[in-house]
Amino acid sequence: MTAERTIPVNLGERSYAVRVGAGLLRKLTPETLGARDVRTVAVISEKHVAELYAAGVLEALRSAGASARLLTFPAGEQHKTLATYAKLMDELLGGGPPIDRRTLVVALGGGVTGDLAGFVAATALRGLRWAQCPTTLLADVDASVGGKTAVDHPAGKNLVGAFHQPAGVLIDVETLRTLPARELRSGLAECVKHAVIRDADLLGFLERRAEALLACAPGEMIELVARNVAIKAAVVAADETEHGERAHLNFGHTIGHAIETFAGYGQITHGEAVALGMTAANHVAVARGMLDAAAAKRVGAALERLGLPTRHDALDADEIWRIMQHDKKNVGGKVRMILARAMGQVEIFDDLSPDEVRQAVASLR
Amino acid sequence: MTAERTIPVNLGERSYAVRVGAGLLRKLTPETLGARDVRTVAVISEKHVAELYAAGVLEALRSAGASARLLTFPAGEQHKTLATYAKLMDELLGGGPPIDRRTLVVALGGGVTGDLAGFVAATALRGLRWAQCPTTLLADVDASVGGKTAVDHPAGKNLVGAFHQPAGVLIDVETLRTLPARELRSGLAECVKHAVIRDADLLGFLERRAEALLACAPGEMIELVARNVAIKAAVVAADETEHGERAHLNFGHTIGHAIETFAGYGQITHGEAVALGMTAANHVAVARGMLDAAAAKRVGAALERLGLPTRHDALDADEIWRIMQHDKKNVGGKVRMILARAMGQVEIFDDLSPDEVRQAVASLR
Repeated sequence: MTAERTIPVNLGERSYAVRVGAGLLRKLTPETLGARDVRTVAVISEKHVAELYAAGVLEALRSAGASARLLTFPAGEQHKTLATYAKLMDELLGGGPPIDRRTLVVALGGGVTGDLAGFVAATALRGLRWAQCPTTLLADVDASVGGKTAVDHPAGKNLVGAFHQPAGVLIDVETLRTLPARELRSGLAECVKHAVIRDADLLGFLERRAEALLACAPGEMIELVARNVAIKAAVVAADETEHGERAHLNFGHTIGHAIETFAGYGQITHGEAVALGMTAANHVAVARGMLDAAAAKRVGAALERLGLPTRHDALDADEIWRIMQHDKKNVGGKVRMILARAMGQVEIFDDLSPDEVRQAVASLR
Repeated sequence: MTAERTIPVNLGERSYAVRVGAGLLRKLTPETLGARDVRTVAVISEKHVAELYAAGVLEALRSAGASARLLTFPAGEQHKTLATYAKLMDELLGGGPPIDRRTLVVALGGGVTGDLAGFVAATALRGLRWAQCPTTLLADVDASVGGKTAVDHPAGKNLVGAFHQPAGVLIDVETLRTLPARELRSGLAECVKHAVIRDADLLGFLERRAEALLACAPGEMIELVARNVAIKAAVVAADETEHGERAHLNFGHTIGHAIETFAGYGQITHGEAVALGMTAANHVAVARGMLDAAAAKRVGAALERLGLPTRHDALDADEIWRIMQHDKKNVGGKVRMILARAMGQVEIFDDLSPDEVRQAVASLR
């Protein structure tokens, strides 16, 4: 039940493997991170994660013969900025033994760490290899596949970044035991998203095992993470740079991102915003007559069972519409949304009217 | 004699064309820059170049139906920093009509502009299309092909950046008439480099037409630029991400970059440093018995005829060796150099001894 799982991410010469298991961090090597011929490793981690896991990771890397050093930054989305990026770059380039093209960057932490460390790796010496060791469920099932790296900008989230595929990803589900419950639920929202866009069976698993999942049982967690990584890997492999069906992964995110911006970064978790965004998107789909009201209700019930919100009483529908129009995924001024036809089946729509969106947001009250 | 020339750069789905001619800037459109379906254009230019050419470029783009705006920064390598990058990014993302994935970034200026604007394009919204309109000979024959973008870091040149191929390149040789003579000669040094690594005939052309080239005669300039772009395009197409023979383009640059760092950015032109670096590299090759002394002498004479230095009386050989060891192109602590066997034929060597380098640098005195 708690056996290790390996999920291939097939991207031609940029292919890599995601390993999922319990206790993997303690026995990590450059090779298990997918990188050969590594001399120096720079582990980038947010401070509170570093306190828990960095010593073990550095020791494992040094035991494997690599020269390893640690770079940290203060936790939180508010630090996912060009300023933090520049500081990490200063430390990487000027602060220790010289790095070269054989240097491996390891991101140890949640999604913010992966985005930041990945962007550092993407741009140091015009691209160093990097590996991800995510420590949150959200990063496990979402950020660990896709090669997206970024920092936020006052004009919006993730506006500065690059596509840069990792050499490998190592997911130790034991780290989820130190995760605050609210963060765990945030990751579960992305799992519900994967179920809605690709895998109705996964929705059943989430419904049946909600309790074990909320308790972080290792067997269920490995199963959950492996299934979700496989879904994301299949979508990304089919469309690496997000010009086609990879857009399906934005289900719940168009309105969700706007809700996150409206609430202010950090006031609401990403998963809570996505749960609300999915609920609103399903409202649009039901109003259009393309999705059964019963299916929408089932998704809402699953979200609630997993401790996620489907209601929010302080949303300004007009303001949220305005924010949505600035989403960088929009093309030519149109707002793009993903709507479900059934569990496991979604489509891209470019014809959203302001009224539809406003009504859907209003329905969340 | 002054007909337009188009050189294809063959990089699979990242292929593009370099157009070379006289008066091209005045009739530029998104399409001649290789980009279709463009709504908004952000022209990034260094201030003194913008004063000369930006109005005409913006007018041409607007006549072609695009919404175009101008972003400028102060000229000079000392501004090729993360700080300037962050300012340009702020202006691009927050300072005007919203950009989206159809936005085209145009780099109008020399190599610094191309490197900076290219890095902005590589990382805004995780990668926007961009086009280069180089206005210096060095940028025409070097930076316009290869997709390298970067900013400098206190720890070294070009340490932060990305590979990001442009949609197209448009070279108007008329802009070379406003170029200071020293900058023109700097570009000619790269032409000599291309001759030594790939094309002995080009060395003959440079020797015979030195006077017309130094006078910027349009016919000779188009011929020169087109031949050099073709050489660089062939090398880059064979090795896009610089893991193999693209390293040949670093002929003269290993020692040259170190000389540039030693002298201090801006104290010596890039071409002057490369002329000295090539002279030193040839000294090593002659000392190894792999290159005829006569060939080395011919290269030196050609450089001098083009107004480039082959002597420098204030170089500290030990310090230059120390700087070379920090070059990001080094792998595993070894210093890599390109050495010539004959005109048009070079090889990569990883076995340079400190003494060989010190003696070669000392020979420049």
